[in-house]
Amino acid sequence: MSHNSFGHLFRVTTWGESHGPAIGCVVDGCPPLLKLDETDIQPWLDRRRPGQSRYTTQRQEPDEVRILSGVFEGCTTGTPISLEIQNVDQRSKDYGAIAQQFRPGHADLTYELKYGTRDYRGGGRSSARETASRVAAGAVARLVLGNEVSVRGALVQIGARAIDRSRWDWEQVGQNPFFCPDAETAALWEQDLAEVRKTGSSVGAVIEVVADGVPPGLGAPIYSKLDADLAGALMGINAVKGVEIGDGFASAASRGEDNADEMRMESGAVHFSANHAGGVLGGISTGQPIVVRFAVKPTSSILTTLQSVDRHGADVDIATRGRHDPCVGIRAVPVGEAMVACVLADHLLRHRAQNPTAPARAMLPRN
Amino acid sequence: MSHNSFGHLFRVTTWGESHGPAIGCVVDGCPPLLKLDETDIQPWLDRRRPGQSRYTTQRQEPDEVRILSGVFEGCTTGTPISLEIQNVDQRSKDYGAIAQQFRPGHADLTYELKYGTRDYRGGGRSSARETASRVAAGAVARLVLGNEVSVRGALVQIGARAIDRSRWDWEQVGQNPFFCPDAETAALWEQDLAEVRKTGSSVGAVIEVVADGVPPGLGAPIYSKLDADLAGALMGINAVKGVEIGDGFASAASRGEDNADEMRMESGAVHFSANHAGGVLGGISTGQPIVVRFAVKPTSSILTTLQSVDRHGADVDIATRGRHDPCVGIRAVPVGEAMVACVLADHLLRHRAQNPTAPARAMLPRN
Amino acid sequence: MSHNSFGHLFRVTTWGESHGPAIGCVVDGCPPLLKLDETDIQPWLDRRRPGQSRYTTQRQEPDEVRILSGVFEGCTTGTPISLEIQNVDQRSKDYGAIAQQFRPGHADLTYELKYGTRDYRGGGRSSARETASRVAAGAVARLVLGNEVSVRGALVQIGARAIDRSRWDWEQVGQNPFFCPDAETAALWEQDLAEVRKTGSSVGAVIEVVADGVPPGLGAPIYSKLDADLAGALMGINAVKGVEIGDGFASAASRGEDNADEMRMESGAVHFSANHAGGVLGGISTGQPIVVRFAVKPTSSILTTLQSVDRHGADVDIATRGRHDPCVGIRAVPVGEAMVACVLADHLLRHRAQNPTAPARAMLPRN
Amino acid sequence: MSHNSFGHLFRVTTWGESHGPAIGCVVDGCPPLLKLDETDIQPWLDRRRPGQSRYTTQRQEPDEVRILSGVFEGCTTGTPISLEIQNVDQRSKDYGAIAQQFRPGHADLTYELKYGTRDYRGGGRSSARETASRVAAGAVARLVLGNEVSVRGALVQIGARAIDRSRWDWEQVGQNPFFCPDAETAALWEQDLAEVRKTGSSVGAVIEVVADGVPPGLGAPIYSKLDADLAGALMGINAVKGVEIGDGFASAASRGEDNADEMRMESGAVHFSANHAGGVLGGISTGQPIVVRFAVKPTSSILTTLQSVDRHGADVDIATRGRHDPCVGIRAVPVGEAMVACVLADHLLRHRAQNPTAPARAMLPRN
Repeated sequence: MSHNSFGHLFRVTTWGESHGPAIGCVVDGCPPLLKLDETDIQPWLDRRRPGQSRYTTQRQEPDEVRILSGVFEGCTTGTPISLEIQNVDQRSKDYGAIAQQFRPGHADLTYELKYGTRDYRGGGRSSARETASRVAAGAVARLVLGNEVSVRGALVQIGARAIDRSRWDWEQVGQNPFFCPDAETAALWEQDLAEVRKTGSSVGAVIEVVADGVPPGLGAPIYSKLDADLAGALMGINAVKGVEIGDGFASAASRGEDNADEMRMESGAVHFSANHAGGVLGGISTGQPIVVRFAVKPTSSILTTLQSVDRHGADVDIATRGRHDPCVGIRAVPVGEAMVACVLADHLLRHRAQNPTAPARAMLPRN
Repeated sequence: MSHNSFGHLFRVTTWGESHGPAIGCVVDGCPPLLKLDETDIQPWLDRRRPGQSRYTTQRQEPDEVRILSGVFEGCTTGTPISLEIQNVDQRSKDYGAIAQQFRPGHADLTYELKYGTRDYRGGGRSSARETASRVAAGAVARLVLGNEVSVRGALVQIGARAIDRSRWDWEQVGQNPFFCPDAETAALWEQDLAEVRKTGSSVGAVIEVVADGVPPGLGAPIYSKLDADLAGALMGINAVKGVEIGDGFASAASRGEDNADEMRMESGAVHFSANHAGGVLGGISTGQPIVVRFAVKPTSSILTTLQSVDRHGADVDIATRGRHDPCVGIRAVPVGEAMVACVLADHLLRHRAQNPTAPARAMLPRN
Repeated sequence: MSHNSFGHLFRVTTWGESHGPAIGCVVDGCPPLLKLDETDIQPWLDRRRPGQSRYTTQRQEPDEVRILSGVFEGCTTGTPISLEIQNVDQRSKDYGAIAQQFRPGHADLTYELKYGTRDYRGGGRSSARETASRVAAGAVARLVLGNEVSVRGALVQIGARAIDRSRWDWEQVGQNPFFCPDAETAALWEQDLAEVRKTGSSVGAVIEVVADGVPPGLGAPIYSKLDADLAGALMGINAVKGVEIGDGFASAASRGEDNADEMRMESGAVHFSANHAGGVLGGISTGQPIVVRFAVKPTSSILTTLQSVDRHGADVDIATRGRHDPCVGIRAVPVGEAMVACVLADHLLRHRAQNPTAPARAMLPRN
Repeated sequence: MSHNSFGHLFRVTTWGESHGPAIGCVVDGCPPLLKLDETDIQPWLDRRRPGQSRYTTQRQEPDEVRILSGVFEGCTTGTPISLEIQNVDQRSKDYGAIAQQFRPGHADLTYELKYGTRDYRGGGRSSARETASRVAAGAVARLVLGNEVSVRGALVQIGARAIDRSRWDWEQVGQNPFFCPDAETAALWEQDLAEVRKTGSSVGAVIEVVADGVPPGLGAPIYSKLDADLAGALMGINAVKGVEIGDGFASAASRGEDNADEMRMESGAVHFSANHAGGVLGGISTGQPIVVRFAVKPTSSILTTLQSVDRHGADVDIATRGRHDPCVGIRAVPVGEAMVACVLADHLLRHRAQNPTAPARAMLPRN
């Protein structure tokens, strides 16, 4: 299988470079008869769109999605859905230096080592612009999951400053430029980032995505564990360096008693005392909320001059000019949501293929 | 694609339950003419084998591997390699309670919710015993990678106590029962675990795997990023709750300047000032060491009584009796190595399929 | 994906060589809670078993299957089913000549060209013995399809002599050594083959497989068309050189009017005037019987001396000694059935993943 | 894996409906640094384009392809190549009847049974228009195969009339509207089709595709046999009902002696006495020409009134009006070539992944 497709039954194939004519994706395997038009996708793209605050890149892209296939009379038909987004703001400039030099922390060097060539304009294929396709696909995945499932993300740490989880309020997420669920921390981040911007530096971030209403039974025991597929999906987002589920790395330091999610019956359903597991046991969803987090490194392009080399094996010094994005992690929130939605949609289809009567089985008690 | 296969070209399919007659795997896609017999695999299995110290489960299994196909006159033939390990120590006992009850933190409940049934004997398919197949496959993957590539793991944290990285010594790893590269910390862990065992509790752990000698260019830009596939592979190991590469979660708190791996030419090759990235940029290996870590939760089976429910929807109380494994993370070291080796072998094959002339291209400088 | 697995959701991975210790397969993706033990598989293997008549190879193999995983208390669990068959009759002999020479019409040369090596004992991996694994997997596939679906094969031509289709009687298939549905032709084939055997020659054959009760809607529009997957599955059987569905090659010579399967409503269901299409339209099953045929070439190993070359580039002359199988097509009947069953089971799972409400939709009329 | 992708490493995903805004495909896994622009693709599309003679549909489509990604400075980059073709001639008309009725021999009924809906305009996804995407992908596949490999198709039978193979002349193929290699038969087909057209009927056809220069060793022993993948690829073309390789169905009637491709060394290479096998032994290419044929049924849309049913379960009578294509098999020639090219390109990549030193091994003699 090639390298630009994601998922087994709900399958997304993306294409496109930052400064080519367009980017897009093909969503294959979507069930038929789901109501879908561009207005189901556009709002999610708008959330990810650059240039909306001074904390993200100033590239101006309308990111207007167009459905080219797979929808008829307002509903999906079961055939591939082709989604396309034109590249509008391909600011013409002299790429002379970037064409020859490898920016530290970027994929310039590795593309060159792998392929012997690269489209260097705006990062080409490795540009964060590609994630617009993921967000568009994620919007379709949400339709597959239905209204019972919600997938929501929030920024929980910028630089060294984390939110106070006791103040978590999902309503806040839409009301600040950071997708922050804690208004007080959001205010502090404004100050933090002003300083970062002023120094031409950058900081990392941690994003948390929570999926509520996920039915139990999604996943598989060994290599397609739900958490394994989520980890791969999130680590595959640009600049992500770590992924965890439930208590994650903190669980290493905990004791078995403290890490236990005990169970009791309540009103005929299993009730858990806690969710240290993050909604997955043995690679299969429990019915509790799925809780994942991922860490994004600080933007590699900074105003500080860095040492590097060029294609000809000469030492060079590089400093970013122009558009500068002090915390690339902010815009990763809608991307993380989209990847989680795609993984869940894919596993929902896989699960019902093998276990068509599982919903009926899911009801305890039984004999 | 079904759920018990791993990899695209170097492809491992595992099967078997803890208390069935045997477990095993089929390794497909292995290149021909590699020297292989059981002695190439057995040492790696022996490292993982239970019952070797009082810090791991006391189940006694010789874990003797047998090659049933794909090898002729001492060499691989390019056809599938079937590896089989008999289950010997299937201690007969009364499974009455476990058959009906769901142990907290185990896959008992989720298997039941997904499949409506489960082989409850010794954890069935969800037993850590399955990881023996992974280790066997990993031994074959090492042959594919060749002698230039080494994949080594170490335990870097048990419970709240981490090693002192300044004392890292790979030689130590084989000389204590913890795969610990720091002799002083190993001694402290002995005391820590004695206390944990005495109280019938358990602790988590963090494992680090380092792959040296990996050629640049392995990986792919979008969904089969090398780090994404590594993350999925490691998160898919039993009890793992977090995965990170390079600086991982710590990179969220760092600044762009501090996170930069700068480059300079040295003796005709690119030399990096650091390896915050963990050997991967844009999803593609740089040629630096690949450095990944994963967190294992504390063993769920503890002597403390925990609240749970049974198949009939009744509340029950559960405490583990008999074999007790205070830190399941210890034996995860060889498993983590194996998964990393399998991912790298798969990507090596994928890379040379698309980029057969890449090795020649990898040499800088060029025009 | 590697090359010894078949199917996407109902997925079979086979392994093993003719003269290794065993052959077998792993069946992954099988739904849980299907009643399964060895007696569900053995009868199908017995039908394929060599040495049952003088018209097939005299190798004596009990072909006794053993289930090593995936079944608990008599039912499938949803985890991989490992099936194993010991190789018993590995008649020891001097392979000297065969080890060095390439038999015309066999895979000796091509394995050598591809892999640089081959297990030459009894044909190694390319032996028809591998098809026992397919038949075993097919037996599991039949359970997935359920009792409403029957998959039956028959031999319809040996050499130049075809059956008289007006005498087709499924009952006859089990009552002659040829799986022939036409008793009169079976009698003539006995004479034909006696002559072929006497001259040390061999003949080809055509097999027809009919699947009744297949629900409408299986398949997919473009690349996973049901007929495309059937064609690939059947062409992949040893010695097969052609595959057709419905009227097949004869449809090239027909007129549109003659090839039309017209429709009328009868008792609330669509009734077709004919089945020229063989049960598939646009790659998707219509609900009519699936009718496929495949051609098997004459056995390549004959007593006549043939010209060939050896590994060292020398010209050699080769004639088969010992076991001689005048029509390898006979034993292809149960193998063809098994492959059709596997394709249908896989598509059944794929279909219900994407179209869970399709059974309800399948009932005409509607608005 | 979903159902609109083809190939494992050289992977084509198509999308689009006959009367939507556009159709297209994404070609993933293409090696980098191949010279590619639209002029490498357009000529192949032009060969397939409708409306070029009175023997094919009169729909007028320029079929102008546009490369949207994966190419930079005139060369492939190793990233996905997005190809797009606008739909221009979407002749507006009243689809009232077709929207409700199921045309015999078409996918109308089966799409409806599978998906519960269909884009009925011009056949929607099941239109032969989709094959333009395959031809575009095939043009890229040819670049992967390189100049040493040629893939050429010809029409060898229309209706009951086959060519005289002794007059085979590849030069003729481009000089008549039938891709016919036998000028005399082409002249007779003109007369045949004039009669077919006059009566409003249709006829089937047989196409032969020959691939010269294919290196030995492509393919795999069991389920990804080169001939199996070719069979699936060709059977997946619209209206195809049979596929064969080498002597195909005729081999069933032949004797072992007559079917033997004997070997002798000539000038240091293996020379075959014949090519009954069609270039494949044991699923692996021999180095001889690959020779495959496929049968296309007569066009289902004819002027004769046929019985059918509609979505509401009522009996209806249907006759095609307007555009009428007396032999849809003609335009299948470039499509067949494209599918063969895609299969070969995919297997070339798969082969060198597992067997990087095979080219060196391919030279006989050796020890």
